[in-house]
Amino acid sequence: MADTVLFEFLHTEMVAELWAHDPDPGSGVSAGSRGEEVGATTGQKMSLSVLESMGFRVGQALGERLPRETLAFREELDVLKFLCKDLWVAVFQKQMDSLRTNHQGTYVLQDNSFPLLLPMASGLQYLEEAPKFLAFTCGLLRGALCTLGIESVVTASVAALPVCKFQVLIPKS
Amino acid sequence: MADTVLFEFLHTEMVAELWAHDPDPGSGVSAGSRGEEVGATTGQKMSLSVLESMGFRVGQALGERLPRETLAFREELDVLKFLCKDLWVAVFQKQMDSLRTNHQGTYVLQDNSFPLLLPMASGLQYLEEAPKFLAFTCGLLRGALCTLGIESVVTASVAALPVCKFQVLIPKS
Repeated sequence: MADTVLFEFLHTEMVAELWAHDPDPGSGVSAGSRGEEVGATTGQKMSLSVLESMGFRVGQALGERLPRETLAFREELDVLKFLCKDLWVAVFQKQMDSLRTNHQGTYVLQDNSFPLLLPMASGLQYLEEAPKFLAFTCGLLRGALCTLGIESVVTASVAALPVCKFQVLIPKS
Repeated sequence: MADTVLFEFLHTEMVAELWAHDPDPGSGVSAGSRGEEVGATTGQKMSLSVLESMGFRVGQALGERLPRETLAFREELDVLKFLCKDLWVAVFQKQMDSLRTNHQGTYVLQDNSFPLLLPMASGLQYLEEAPKFLAFTCGLLRGALCTLGIESVVTASVAALPVCKFQVLIPKS
């Protein structure tokens, strides 16, 4: 019964706790791993960074528990598809809604009803609160990719709640 | 697949993050809500308190999602049994191993293999690390009880890893 929402409750508490140390609201609407946070204060940037790091380590740990056959993925696109299906279902009990790529190492994963943004009212007035609810998940994606052998930069953006786009950049080596 | 361990990974990260601000190891082996922490530094007491508060609010939120019929519990003991079965399964995918009471408002809930202590090696040498892995769960129990209309003081103790006892004190009004 309650286990499916446990992660969401805990995530909410984590964000609230980290933000309690820096209550000044920022005005940025993007959050990400090694990406820029527009208009955030130094304390908020640190909180976003902490959340992203926590997500990264959880993503790594989850990645290590993936079934062995997934490690045999040859194509980058297969790995991204796996994140959109299996990882998303494991964490959010739903699949990502769409995955697009330019076939040059850039992937855009779109969730039309991102669970961690659902508790917020729809509309534009809460947009500036969105980054802190995205940082952990950016790290989660980066961590899972890392375990699967892919270095990446993951950022997120929200144009209208609760639609969320995660952009995964995989630098060519 | 991975969703059952997601809570445990996230809890581990939360503890690590809060402890990162106060790395000095304490020597206490008890942790609890409004209980004493033996030998802990001020920073550690604050971290324990923060964890307990987070657990309390998650417990309250979980309590609010319990099926309606549980709110009709008349006997304190029924509520405690409910926590030992349904709440524990929802959070840890297992039932509490035993529940004892003196019928005077004191309950001892024992988990012989507490999941949040399992990653630690068995034995005495890690006992002093145990309190930080118990504070959140003490709060969780106190929060769920609060939603069910029962004020309590919850403490935890570990005599040998990974066995854990949670003591619930319900003051007579």
